[in-house]
Amino acid sequence: MSAPGKLVGVGVGPGDPELITLKAVRVLEGADVIVHFCKAGHPGNARTIAARHFRPGIRELTLTFPMTTELPRHEPAYCDGIRAFYDAAAREVAGHLEDGRVVAVVCEGDPLFYGSYMHLHVRLAPRFHTEVVAGVSGMSGCWSAVGTPIAQGDDVFTVLPGTLAQDELERRLRSTDAVVVIKLGRNLPKVRRALERSGRAERALYVERGTMSDEKAIPLADKSDDCAPYFAMVLVPGWERRP
Amino acid sequence: MSAPGKLVGVGVGPGDPELITLKAVRVLEGADVIVHFCKAGHPGNARTIAARHFRPGIRELTLTFPMTTELPRHEPAYCDGIRAFYDAAAREVAGHLEDGRVVAVVCEGDPLFYGSYMHLHVRLAPRFHTEVVAGVSGMSGCWSAVGTPIAQGDDVFTVLPGTLAQDELERRLRSTDAVVVIKLGRNLPKVRRALERSGRAERALYVERGTMSDEKAIPLADKSDDCAPYFAMVLVPGWERRP
Repeated sequence: MSAPGKLVGVGVGPGDPELITLKAVRVLEGADVIVHFCKAGHPGNARTIAARHFRPGIRELTLTFPMTTELPRHEPAYCDGIRAFYDAAAREVAGHLEDGRVVAVVCEGDPLFYGSYMHLHVRLAPRFHTEVVAGVSGMSGCWSAVGTPIAQGDDVFTVLPGTLAQDELERRLRSTDAVVVIKLGRNLPKVRRALERSGRAERALYVERGTMSDEKAIPLADKSDDCAPYFAMVLVPGWERRP
Repeated sequence: MSAPGKLVGVGVGPGDPELITLKAVRVLEGADVIVHFCKAGHPGNARTIAARHFRPGIRELTLTFPMTTELPRHEPAYCDGIRAFYDAAAREVAGHLEDGRVVAVVCEGDPLFYGSYMHLHVRLAPRFHTEVVAGVSGMSGCWSAVGTPIAQGDDVFTVLPGTLAQDELERRLRSTDAVVVIKLGRNLPKVRRALERSGRAERALYVERGTMSDEKAIPLADKSDDCAPYFAMVLVPGWERRP
């Protein structure tokens, strides 16, 4: 807390630029530096959603992932590479904070829910003032876009990364009421098999780019191919016992 | 879809009035009728959060729950009473929709995630045009307010209603990475025992009125009493394996 700068993780919502909060807009308009993560060659979604609120000429810092899904998550090379990336990113952001700047990191969805921002947050929060502006999560955007009540009453609600093993997905799908499967991409065929074997395929909905102008949403059973972006989701609503 | 009116479920966020979205503000400013749920004798939180965006003189409809936690959820008297309440509420809202009005229902948090709005939605969506404006959920508000990254990577994330039996809570707490326990209230002593017996008590955080001006947040172990409002939450962050 010795430095006068401030790090702010700013949730900008699931994609529809109108699903950003008043607080996020105020913070972006007042920031000295705006940080965004992106994959090499692709503009980051968070920046695309929020850029209309950046002051003209604002200083921007782009953090480009050295890899995303090219290596399995548990390979040492992946872990080492991504750790070095976050360490270097935190050092660069720290420079701005030491100079007293307000640094806003734009985050798709909600910053502390499966987001990249948290890796900067844990590295910098011990030394600098931090604030987190909650955002509408990608999953809320998806179930709202398709008008599907996801959970109510005594429902148990679970988020399952599609990266889990098929037998674990199957077991967990059997033992919860409502489910969102995230991180689909190349995991979709496995997720589909787990849904079928657990008896949960029938009500499953596939949603891609939820709330964005090119959103696609169909019952998973009607999706004839297994092509899915990494950020697509499968929703299985709970709510079998409704009052 | 025969009538020209439209029903809109509008998420107004977790409590901080700035955590409402631009879209929610636009919809509220353009609505013909604004509906809010409340408990007898208590102004609804959603109305308190959003009222600054209501047009002067806007027509309002207050839906007062006949009961909330006075009867156990599985008692037939509770189910019958609450079903009759939603049926009557839907009839009243349908009258406005038949007259061609845009009816906005303000919802704390996110409308389709453990919210009351969904009971109107399922009753009216087959007959009328509906739209849902996703909101920042109460749980996102809570973990952001305390700056606690909740889930990342391959974490399994689970929401457990505190109304579940102690042994079920215990079993589920053991088998997930990140957890949010909702619906605390009188269930707090049971939830606390389940956290202790499952070995998850140490990192548990208690958050009451997250993002509101009178927010309280402390490690659950430091909370010396068992008094909790129904909407308080316990957070147990996942994220033991961080890159």
